Amino acid sequence: AQSSVTIYGKLNVEAGKAIGTTDKTLLDVAGSRLGFRGVEDMGGGLKATFGIEHRFNPATGDSAAAKFWNGYSTVGLMGDWGHIRLGRDYVVGFLMVQNQIDPFGGDTQGALRNIGMISGSTGPAGAGKVRYDSQIEYHFSASGFNIAAQVADAGAVNGGRAKRPFALATNYAGGPLFVGLAYENGGDADDKHLSLGGRYNFGFATLSAGYSRGTNVAGVDVKGYLLGANVPFGAGDFKLGYAVSDNDAVAGKLKKVGIGYHYNLSKRTKVFADYGKVGGGEPVGQKTGYDFGIQHNF
Amino acid sequence: AQSSVTIYGKLNVEAGKAIGTTDKTLLDVAGSRLGFRGVEDMGGGLKATFGIEHRFNPATGDSAAAKFWNGYSTVGLMGDWGHIRLGRDYVVGFLMVQNQIDPFGGDTQGALRNIGMISGSTGPAGAGKVRYDSQIEYHFSASGFNIAAQVADAGAVNGGRAKRPFALATNYAGGPLFVGLAYENGGDADDKHLSLGGRYNFGFATLSAGYSRGTNVAGVDVKGYLLGANVPFGAGDFKLGYAVSDNDAVAGKLKKVGIGYHYNLSKRTKVFADYGKVGGGEPVGQKTGYDFGIQHNF
Amino acid sequence: AQSSVTIYGKLNVEAGKAIGTTDKTLLDVAGSRLGFRGVEDMGGGLKATFGIEHRFNPATGDSAAAKFWNGYSTVGLMGDWGHIRLGRDYVVGFLMVQNQIDPFGGDTQGALRNIGMISGSTGPAGAGKVRYDSQIEYHFSASGFNIAAQVADAGAVNGGRAKRPFALATNYAGGPLFVGLAYENGGDADDKHLSLGGRYNFGFATLSAGYSRGTNVAGVDVKGYLLGANVPFGAGDFKLGYAVSDNDAVAGKLKKVGIGYHYNLSKRTKVFADYGKVGGGEPVGQKTGYDFGIQHNF
Repeated sequence: AQSSVTIYGKLNVEAGKAIGTTDKTLLDVAGSRLGFRGVEDMGGGLKATFGIEHRFNPATGDSAAAKFWNGYSTVGLMGDWGHIRLGRDYVVGFLMVQNQIDPFGGDTQGALRNIGMISGSTGPAGAGKVRYDSQIEYHFSASGFNIAAQVADAGAVNGGRAKRPFALATNYAGGPLFVGLAYENGGDADDKHLSLGGRYNFGFATLSAGYSRGTNVAGVDVKGYLLGANVPFGAGDFKLGYAVSDNDAVAGKLKKVGIGYHYNLSKRTKVFADYGKVGGGEPVGQKTGYDFGIQHNF
Repeated sequence: AQSSVTIYGKLNVEAGKAIGTTDKTLLDVAGSRLGFRGVEDMGGGLKATFGIEHRFNPATGDSAAAKFWNGYSTVGLMGDWGHIRLGRDYVVGFLMVQNQIDPFGGDTQGALRNIGMISGSTGPAGAGKVRYDSQIEYHFSASGFNIAAQVADAGAVNGGRAKRPFALATNYAGGPLFVGLAYENGGDADDKHLSLGGRYNFGFATLSAGYSRGTNVAGVDVKGYLLGANVPFGAGDFKLGYAVSDNDAVAGKLKKVGIGYHYNLSKRTKVFADYGKVGGGEPVGQKTGYDFGIQHNF
Repeated sequence: AQSSVTIYGKLNVEAGKAIGTTDKTLLDVAGSRLGFRGVEDMGGGLKATFGIEHRFNPATGDSAAAKFWNGYSTVGLMGDWGHIRLGRDYVVGFLMVQNQIDPFGGDTQGALRNIGMISGSTGPAGAGKVRYDSQIEYHFSASGFNIAAQVADAGAVNGGRAKRPFALATNYAGGPLFVGLAYENGGDADDKHLSLGGRYNFGFATLSAGYSRGTNVAGVDVKGYLLGANVPFGAGDFKLGYAVSDNDAVAGKLKKVGIGYHYNLSKRTKVFADYGKVGGGEPVGQKTGYDFGIQHNF
């Protein structure tokens, strides 16, 4: 049995101060994880796939969420015709678009994703969701194009929606170019979310831009955008970016700038330092955050 | 250390509707799991054994129970003289008899075990238990015969019993024949359970029959029986069966019919469809359930 | 990814009666565990390290604590210059001194560590802590000498201290000799702890002696000492010892004697029997405890 399971994970710890607090402590924005996954080749081009991913906080040893397998837990079938997976998983728009545009990938105090792409719960009344429980998803890839569609249970596991939430996403990666587009309908009357964005590797830097807009479950319109850059330097890269989000129920806009340097000690281990500052018409108390961190992937 | 641990598991998800509800959602009746087990050969015929098994629901990523290692958690010694294990484990009668008779093995909406063999908590006031905490068990096998005895703590971990619960079980498997017999005493004055059953592989089908009777903790007599068949067809088998349970505290009987087809994509992966319907004098609201599922074992 | 992860663990179960209760049941004082750890050699003498360790009770299948990774969870960098680790981990004085002196290593009903070395929560108002959350530690080893220093977050994760808790420890192991010395400051006004001790292997026996004193968070002075012996016999060893602790807020002293025999079935598996009795001016109800256990390490 052993041969068919791959154990993988990430240990990430930052010494720093989070935006919105005065505590200088150990943080983990990147989501430390332990996962088990596998693929069985059943012949005739058909494969069975599975994966379960636990999230935890190494600073405290606690599970990162009440759900033990908070990352995802799916089983599926894969062939030339695509890949179907059932279980808990990322919303395809989050995975294929929103999380691809932020130069910080949503990690560290510099993270811009949840503001510019309105994808998470830490931005102003986000319209997009990160994960669904009890969902069925279909993925297809060919010639650099990826498309995906998913539908989820409308019940309590997904917050008790009027209709089944669903999401559609597509992206293209080829040479220096990445572009993506996603639509999500959260299942309530006005709950929807559109996101799009791209990256281009100019050699001296990869520049990113993204835009998102939606209506949250309270019927409030939200929108945002994100501009970012990754600049290779030495064995690492500088990351910098700017994101804005605008919630119609709140006066003014929320703005954030993030900057960081991530130095790769190896392909699997890096150390990094980041700084983030929020401003605009939606005050959040402590406006700055920073971190000095280490991340190991196994 | 690595070489001595085997990782194994099961990922099972069904799209369907459970009996008793109107929700069409993702289910997992089979009990998705992740386990770690090992055997150390210490020479002289003596072996040390261990195993721990987590249960979870892949539809939601949640632990299936408050106990993380809900499946079992034991350490033991094994030799020609038998196998002693200490910890949390299945009641031997459940493992060696009750779970062997149901053609569905207790899985899917077609499952008959918990009605006909009165072994679980989902039937009418089951007298038999599935697992004990804080138990010591002894197993011996020779020439196709298996016998087992176990005794458990009477304390709060097993529900606070008047005396120590204990269970005895034996079965025989040889050629086309399987037969088993088990007795359990739950530790309270009237709490006891007898189960017996068998299977015979006629080639065109394996036919099963089981009978159980007992008295539950409330002093109520319960009894049941189960008739089942597995019919090989193509790379899979049809499963069908009928189970009845009779609880003296409730007028009438609870009856269930289950039918399904399970198709093996490989030795480790199958897809399946099942239907179950309950009836009789003990109404349960929604009487029918069905599922379309996939299961991968690693 | 698989090749870089080591899975290890311990399964420990004792049938017995704990001091302070009348229940005869299954116990686990040694702390059954499942861990994942790894080291990445990044070249140039630099290594990345990580480890996470879950604790559980095999008698019940429950997690041993609300924290899933209760043992430790760290990521770090290691070189000729030492080893830095961030996350949740043992207090260095516990790891390098207090846990080294008890012939029972804190395990079984004979355990003396928590009384004589005042390191845990089961002794009288212990001044020393076992683990810190959100800590940074530095270790250096050369020529048999080991030194370590660590500092932790003063916040809620460590009980809400006035200042950052910190600890210092050193020990030396060479030939038959082990000696160690540790100081800890828990972060509150009077919260501090000193421990020291040693072992010497005379061949026929290893004799141990330790002393500790401190002030707990309530400002109460506590002190203790421990005398122990491991006497090799057959494929195992007799363990015996005596520990005393004195809490200034309570009349009299708490005394404990422990005796046991641990028989190694292999390098990884042992069976054992132990007896402990407490006495002195601090009554604890049931004064005696005993166990018959099995432990397997993988």
